[in-house]
Amino acid sequence: MRITDIIAAKRDGLDIADQDISKIVLDYAAGDVPDYQMSAFLMACYIRGLSFAEVSAMTRAMIDSGGMLDLSGVSGVKVDKHSTGGVGDKTTLIVVPMLAVCGLKVPKMSGRGLGFTGGTLDKLESIPGFNTAIDPQAFAGQVEDIGAAIAGQSREIVPADKKIYALRDVTATVESIPLIAASIMSKKIACASDVVLLDVKVGSGAFARDIVQARELANTMIAIGANLGKTVGAVVTDMNQPLGCAVGNAIEVAEAIDALKGGGPDDLRRLCVELCAVMLVIAGRCESVSDSRSLAVSCLDSGEALRKFVEIVAAQGGDAGVVEDALLLPQARSRCDVTSLESGFVSEIACARIGAAASLLGAGRRYKEDAVDSAVGIIVKKKLGDRVEKGEVLAQLHVNDESNVSEASNMVSDAYRIGREVAISPLIHEIIRP
Amino acid sequence: MRITDIIAAKRDGLDIADQDISKIVLDYAAGDVPDYQMSAFLMACYIRGLSFAEVSAMTRAMIDSGGMLDLSGVSGVKVDKHSTGGVGDKTTLIVVPMLAVCGLKVPKMSGRGLGFTGGTLDKLESIPGFNTAIDPQAFAGQVEDIGAAIAGQSREIVPADKKIYALRDVTATVESIPLIAASIMSKKIACASDVVLLDVKVGSGAFARDIVQARELANTMIAIGANLGKTVGAVVTDMNQPLGCAVGNAIEVAEAIDALKGGGPDDLRRLCVELCAVMLVIAGRCESVSDSRSLAVSCLDSGEALRKFVEIVAAQGGDAGVVEDALLLPQARSRCDVTSLESGFVSEIACARIGAAASLLGAGRRYKEDAVDSAVGIIVKKKLGDRVEKGEVLAQLHVNDESNVSEASNMVSDAYRIGREVAISPLIHEIIRP
Repeated sequence: MRITDIIAAKRDGLDIADQDISKIVLDYAAGDVPDYQMSAFLMACYIRGLSFAEVSAMTRAMIDSGGMLDLSGVSGVKVDKHSTGGVGDKTTLIVVPMLAVCGLKVPKMSGRGLGFTGGTLDKLESIPGFNTAIDPQAFAGQVEDIGAAIAGQSREIVPADKKIYALRDVTATVESIPLIAASIMSKKIACASDVVLLDVKVGSGAFARDIVQARELANTMIAIGANLGKTVGAVVTDMNQPLGCAVGNAIEVAEAIDALKGGGPDDLRRLCVELCAVMLVIAGRCESVSDSRSLAVSCLDSGEALRKFVEIVAAQGGDAGVVEDALLLPQARSRCDVTSLESGFVSEIACARIGAAASLLGAGRRYKEDAVDSAVGIIVKKKLGDRVEKGEVLAQLHVNDESNVSEASNMVSDAYRIGREVAISPLIHEIIRP
Repeated sequence: MRITDIIAAKRDGLDIADQDISKIVLDYAAGDVPDYQMSAFLMACYIRGLSFAEVSAMTRAMIDSGGMLDLSGVSGVKVDKHSTGGVGDKTTLIVVPMLAVCGLKVPKMSGRGLGFTGGTLDKLESIPGFNTAIDPQAFAGQVEDIGAAIAGQSREIVPADKKIYALRDVTATVESIPLIAASIMSKKIACASDVVLLDVKVGSGAFARDIVQARELANTMIAIGANLGKTVGAVVTDMNQPLGCAVGNAIEVAEAIDALKGGGPDDLRRLCVELCAVMLVIAGRCESVSDSRSLAVSCLDSGEALRKFVEIVAAQGGDAGVVEDALLLPQARSRCDVTSLESGFVSEIACARIGAAASLLGAGRRYKEDAVDSAVGIIVKKKLGDRVEKGEVLAQLHVNDESNVSEASNMVSDAYRIGREVAISPLIHEIIRP
């Protein structure tokens, strides 16, 4: 089939054969299909959808566009945890050392923030000296030696996904369950872990706005994994408000350190324990989540997870002193309070707007090329269900560039709805076992 | 609205405001919107459709991307006839002089062939010396002096349409009623005639495969015209077989000259008479089509239309001697017959395949940059409903490059279905008055 015939078939809602999906993806990666043809194809995929066979073929083609990460030198069960993205989600910083403490190997390749969502690499790079650009051999060596490493994805892994993702970002074709599933799973599979746990977010700060969408995304990814021989489980978790309190980079690292010390916000701690516990079950280390939960809790409370975190930071050139002295992390010049205009209960938080406000302050990027300001961000002081009095602080902005404070304050203020006491949705919606 | 928001809105099936349609079209024409964003938008338009307000806004934006043809120096009623494209459609060569004989002014801007459809400019350029690249002033002057001119569209007219059409051609977004309607009507309106008659083709050699589609396309274009103050009528005509017998360039000119002499194939003559007659009514020259039909017939039979054609050819530098001696037109080196493999009646002709076969022989182009061979083409010897004996000639190929003869012969042979006698669809399906 010619490329225009493949585009026309998807445009008309027909199923595309494996070899044709493979052709358009690989030819695009190789530069033989121009952007304008791929974007027309992606729009047709977005609107018409993809069958499971098509999503699987697309995932395989994206993997085939590059190499697989070589983890042959890593012994034991290799696991990977992936979040579909949210606001204030710093669980990777906490869960990776927890899993390593439990004897699993965690070769974690992470991404950067874009739009209103944060990225693990940006957060880690706020630790002075921390190097996320380690080559694949050193990466595998560190995983074997200390049980975990957290780095940026190497260029050789799924180059087609990188190119397609960049195109989707500027052609309004991001929010598609099959395209998201193929993108995530191609990366997860090329990164060669044995077991993958997906944290699928749902709510006002996530792609999936309702549980039905979240479940569909989770099940699609689990099925793709099963089809390609991976053990994949998922946890559907709430993103109707920032996770924890800190939204930024250095301030999120500080909050993660608090959690690693056994403290930190309750929702953050609970989610980290749950992710670790579910992973221990699907990786075959524990029989039931109730067993593994106590193991996960003890990792935090014993200080072992914190010590593992220090090991990882040191191995990657970072200043592990930040664990003892948070002031070693970049600090913003000034702090501005956003106060409540009325009294009542926090009944709604437009979570994506909090993320966007933090991004506007410099914590995130609008375009891939932008640099982030490690120090700035937002500390949420009131969460869903909290009682608040008029004039009380809802959130605190950590600011280096005052020019955006007024707009960011308004965004945060608008994001809060103060009203009557309402039922709060649970943190963990459901667990989907492989 | 940002460009990605406009794309996202159409992707989700929402109506786009006039100023947003205008923005994406004009910014694209100016080079400020990249091809990959426009192609995603066009695919969304293709699948989701456009409301009448959106098609009108798109038409206006395309007109606004360039200038209007200046016909202020042309007196009288200016008329334009446009065919949606077909195989063997040489009516422009005949109808333009007929209308001029009837006292109407005919400033005809035509296009070139692409794919399986022919183009008037390519046909006229097979007349030695004929110049289709006359500047707008000379064009208007010729229309005022002798009543008609046929030329290529100047670069200043609807540049956005040119750019969008080229992009649609390579992104599987051509066959969309609103996009076709906006493309055609923007050109017609920018060309500044008072009255437009559309010949909307329906059948196996046309975009519209059934009468419902054809009627929708016709009515959309009529409504756009009315909205912008133009008198637009339409004739829905059959394209289930080539019009007349000749499919090519020089051979179509020769057939058109036969028709101008009062001869030629019956269907070609009938359609030309009908187009002229309907135009005379909608331009206010005659009360009824039955009145104007006899006027149209007399144009042909009196030789006046032929003399006007000679005037036009001479005015544009062409060798008018072709009218007396068809051998002055380019002649192909050899002729090959395609014969019937069975006896029966011609029950079906895959008309687009005949056009594609002629194009393969060199009469048309696959890409815009290709040159055409004026001499080559196909003479259809058997039309729908004709009795044919095994071994009898179905069509004759006029050939200069023997390498494609075998494939073209097979295409023509495959295009014919010989079977039982069937009812033949009428040549004129319906007339839609303004």
